[in-house]
Amino acid sequence: MPEKKPHSNWRAKVHEIIYEADTPAGKLFDIILLVAILASILLVMLESIESLDEKYHMFFNVSEWVITILFSIEYILRIISVKQPIKYVTSFYGIIDLLSTIPKYLSLIFVGTHALVAFRAIRLLRIFRILKLVRFLSASNHLATALKASRAKISVFMLAVLIITIILGTVMYLVEGKDHGFDNIPKSVYWCIVTLTTVGFGDITPQTPLGQIIASLIMIMGYGIIAVPTGIVSAEYTKHTKDDGAHDKHTTSALPPHPSTVNTNSQSCANCLASNHKDGAEFCYKCGYQLHHD
Amino acid sequence: MPEKKPHSNWRAKVHEIIYEADTPAGKLFDIILLVAILASILLVMLESIESLDEKYHMFFNVSEWVITILFSIEYILRIISVKQPIKYVTSFYGIIDLLSTIPKYLSLIFVGTHALVAFRAIRLLRIFRILKLVRFLSASNHLATALKASRAKISVFMLAVLIITIILGTVMYLVEGKDHGFDNIPKSVYWCIVTLTTVGFGDITPQTPLGQIIASLIMIMGYGIIAVPTGIVSAEYTKHTKDDGAHDKHTTSALPPHPSTVNTNSQSCANCLASNHKDGAEFCYKCGYQLHHD
Amino acid sequence: MPEKKPHSNWRAKVHEIIYEADTPAGKLFDIILLVAILASILLVMLESIESLDEKYHMFFNVSEWVITILFSIEYILRIISVKQPIKYVTSFYGIIDLLSTIPKYLSLIFVGTHALVAFRAIRLLRIFRILKLVRFLSASNHLATALKASRAKISVFMLAVLIITIILGTVMYLVEGKDHGFDNIPKSVYWCIVTLTTVGFGDITPQTPLGQIIASLIMIMGYGIIAVPTGIVSAEYTKHTKDDGAHDKHTTSALPPHPSTVNTNSQSCANCLASNHKDGAEFCYKCGYQLHHD
Amino acid sequence: MPEKKPHSNWRAKVHEIIYEADTPAGKLFDIILLVAILASILLVMLESIESLDEKYHMFFNVSEWVITILFSIEYILRIISVKQPIKYVTSFYGIIDLLSTIPKYLSLIFVGTHALVAFRAIRLLRIFRILKLVRFLSASNHLATALKASRAKISVFMLAVLIITIILGTVMYLVEGKDHGFDNIPKSVYWCIVTLTTVGFGDITPQTPLGQIIASLIMIMGYGIIAVPTGIVSAEYTKHTKDDGAHDKHTTSALPPHPSTVNTNSQSCANCLASNHKDGAEFCYKCGYQLHHD
Repeated sequence: MPEKKPHSNWRAKVHEIIYEADTPAGKLFDIILLVAILASILLVMLESIESLDEKYHMFFNVSEWVITILFSIEYILRIISVKQPIKYVTSFYGIIDLLSTIPKYLSLIFVGTHALVAFRAIRLLRIFRILKLVRFLSASNHLATALKASRAKISVFMLAVLIITIILGTVMYLVEGKDHGFDNIPKSVYWCIVTLTTVGFGDITPQTPLGQIIASLIMIMGYGIIAVPTGIVSAEYTKHTKDDGAHDKHTTSALPPHPSTVNTNSQSCANCLASNHKDGAEFCYKCGYQLHHD
Repeated sequence: MPEKKPHSNWRAKVHEIIYEADTPAGKLFDIILLVAILASILLVMLESIESLDEKYHMFFNVSEWVITILFSIEYILRIISVKQPIKYVTSFYGIIDLLSTIPKYLSLIFVGTHALVAFRAIRLLRIFRILKLVRFLSASNHLATALKASRAKISVFMLAVLIITIILGTVMYLVEGKDHGFDNIPKSVYWCIVTLTTVGFGDITPQTPLGQIIASLIMIMGYGIIAVPTGIVSAEYTKHTKDDGAHDKHTTSALPPHPSTVNTNSQSCANCLASNHKDGAEFCYKCGYQLHHD
Repeated sequence: MPEKKPHSNWRAKVHEIIYEADTPAGKLFDIILLVAILASILLVMLESIESLDEKYHMFFNVSEWVITILFSIEYILRIISVKQPIKYVTSFYGIIDLLSTIPKYLSLIFVGTHALVAFRAIRLLRIFRILKLVRFLSASNHLATALKASRAKISVFMLAVLIITIILGTVMYLVEGKDHGFDNIPKSVYWCIVTLTTVGFGDITPQTPLGQIIASLIMIMGYGIIAVPTGIVSAEYTKHTKDDGAHDKHTTSALPPHPSTVNTNSQSCANCLASNHKDGAEFCYKCGYQLHHD
Repeated sequence: MPEKKPHSNWRAKVHEIIYEADTPAGKLFDIILLVAILASILLVMLESIESLDEKYHMFFNVSEWVITILFSIEYILRIISVKQPIKYVTSFYGIIDLLSTIPKYLSLIFVGTHALVAFRAIRLLRIFRILKLVRFLSASNHLATALKASRAKISVFMLAVLIITIILGTVMYLVEGKDHGFDNIPKSVYWCIVTLTTVGFGDITPQTPLGQIIASLIMIMGYGIIAVPTGIVSAEYTKHTKDDGAHDKHTTSALPPHPSTVNTNSQSCANCLASNHKDGAEFCYKCGYQLHHD
């Protein structure tokens, strides 16, 4: 139910800054947002290093509050400037944006408690701010399409891998047993996954000749069947790049378009949040709401 | 020799439930079967964890009996409802279905013995129940075709890998010797497979400069020739997806069809077990036996 | 200079048995040869296991002599039955066939000496007998073509990998130093190859934060650039399979043709050793020498 | 501003020797340069092995001086013979050529100091001489094009990998904690990269069941998504080899053309350093300067 009445001017302005990357103010906003996200992630990571936290605890705390307040303002502005706030709040980005602000406020409540693990977990929720970066990945539509197209086959492949590892894990548990680190079937299956995926930590290794022969088979199998997902994505990808020949030739040989320099795709409707509008489009292709307000 | 006489009504009904996934009863049966298989596998895995087994031994035992009896009933019903029981019993699924029930009954016989290893091995045979899941993988025909088509080349590749690892394993045995963990040629070959497949456990590592140089060569070789199986499957796969263009475009962009929602392929003949019947087929394409009994 | 005079009947017969796989005698010869090679390789491997060698030394020694004499006879027969023995002796197979017999005879000469390393090295030369298996790999012409076609690009890629590992190895030597196992540049480069190829033994690992950051870069790089050889071989392979469409569709979906059942390719000229003759060819396409002698 | 006045004869001669690989003198120069680079790299690597350095310190020092003086002469000649020395000096090759000579001279200045780390770092700068080899890699234009074309997508992929590892690294830090080696988030992220890229050092491994389950997911994910860069490069590469069919068929089946035998590409303009001139070109395609001076 798109309401067509022109909303107040400053809300339109805010929408333009936040959602449209092709104006100077929009560009600036994007850059500030990017820097804030990266700084925030760096803060969470450095805070977890004990020696650094002891030294710079005050600095970390203040910076964290600055970033939290910044993100809070962004969250409120996004809600205000969008026509259908509920839709935004319940969207993927809406949840991520909320998660970016809440943990620090919650830390005020839990300040006196000694429930360290829960507290730490909540504080670390801030790391999910990195998902705000996904907004800047919109250039990778092509890649996502190929991945989505091969999702079914990759699922089947993954299930096949799981079946193989469970059977071979059980066999290895029987052959090697508790004495050589294969304590129980789940652990054996874990080892089997470590080996089949060619990771090979080496914390558990087969010691008996028979165990080593089976391990060799698992390794060669893992080395061989890695070809399967690769072949699938490769074929899927080749097909997709072929479908839109001319267009593709243009995009692939260019640098990843900087979010703020792309004229298409870069703005989303203030009413229904739909993006990927045509170049120079005046109205949203989905709900007919007017796009540009100059 | 297909006998065409109409068999008793309840046997037809049972066949419909078990073998045809497109009726409500058939769907329910598939879902119960799926849950039973997964529960059964989980049970076998959890039982192997000693601390859990001590605590919940009674619960594990009862659950196992419930599942075993369930699978036994399924096995008997499958035999009864199929026209040619021998064919089913000796088929891949027939053997898997038998293996799913027998171990628990055998445990009654071996209950007093102390032959722990044999007993454990028999109990663990239950893990092969996971192969019952293969029935649900019928959607992956495309993948299997590509794999089967490149089987010959992958075999040649595997043989080449084996020849390389045996020769280089022997060389490493000579260079590093017993003092650095390369005790004998089979162990050296095992190490060579671990290295070439880029698993790299690290339980045995070359210590001499010459050994490390040879190891580097093996690793770079392994890193390079992984391209070969990938290239093969990739090319094979591209060819197959190209052969049936229109049809493929439809299937690849869809979710993996849930076993109980696919209308084709989902039922098999009560007489000869042939599946992959055409949509709406009335008679088996192989033996002419009537398919639907409504 | 092919001499056209008909050679003695038994030499023609021997040639037929050894070089032509499409007669019953030829098939039998191929099977015996295959078994002898595999038994011989197994012997060399088992002999290297000390505990087994102590127990079954006598048995190993006798078996080895039987196989050696068998290979010697084969070698002599091959020389006799071929028109241009020099050509055969200096060919790849000729050298491998010689290497298959000589080590055991040399062990008679060195029997009294204590030069263990040299002696062991000579004995282990027998492992190269496995290369006699290459004769049975003739079905993989297609694969070899794709590999040969991408040889140039893979060489360039390997050189690039080497340059990267030498530079990054030096940097890691500087960053981590002797205290963390990066004793000298060659060892650092070795570690770098272990890491870039995603083998990851774990015998040497970076301990400093900076070292771990650089290691992360190396790993991600290694994970990414593995795509390069794969892409090359894949593209090369796709091209080759496309060139001979109809023919390929036939071969790829079949099992690897057993050496003794293929009618083409399976015989080589008694005069110039050329193989890959056309089906039903009467004369060698290279030197005009008559092929069949029935 | 290309000056067209004919420069002195000996400078033209020097230019021909250094920049043109298709004259006997040019070929000889290339070979000497190649040997000098390889010898120099070998020297740096061997010097870092303490036991060797103690024994052959004198020899290493003298050899290093010989090579340094040789490279210095080369550098000066390159500057003299080129029309626009500034352009050369500030180019990639110009900087590498300078870096190849300077470290040894700097060692004279720091000879008395005890600033070992700085001194060692400067001496090790010589390893960058290996980049002089890049000049010989000009045959790999095709490969570089495919890589450059997929650069955008690979960047997006790398960013996605980074986002995944940071989130999962934080989760693992929470699950496993300090007691099992996951001291802080950066270290957890490092472990996550080690695991996702299937390197798997094994210096840090998950110990709790939950940690091992998450680790299994990371490994299977890493095993699966390696298909993505491979698919991209593969598709990109296939497209590029298809674009120039006839030409490609010729180059791919040939050996990598030796730098000194290629008639095209092998000479660069004395005025503007542009290379890749057409076969038999008389004037530079970029600045019109005369190419051959015979």
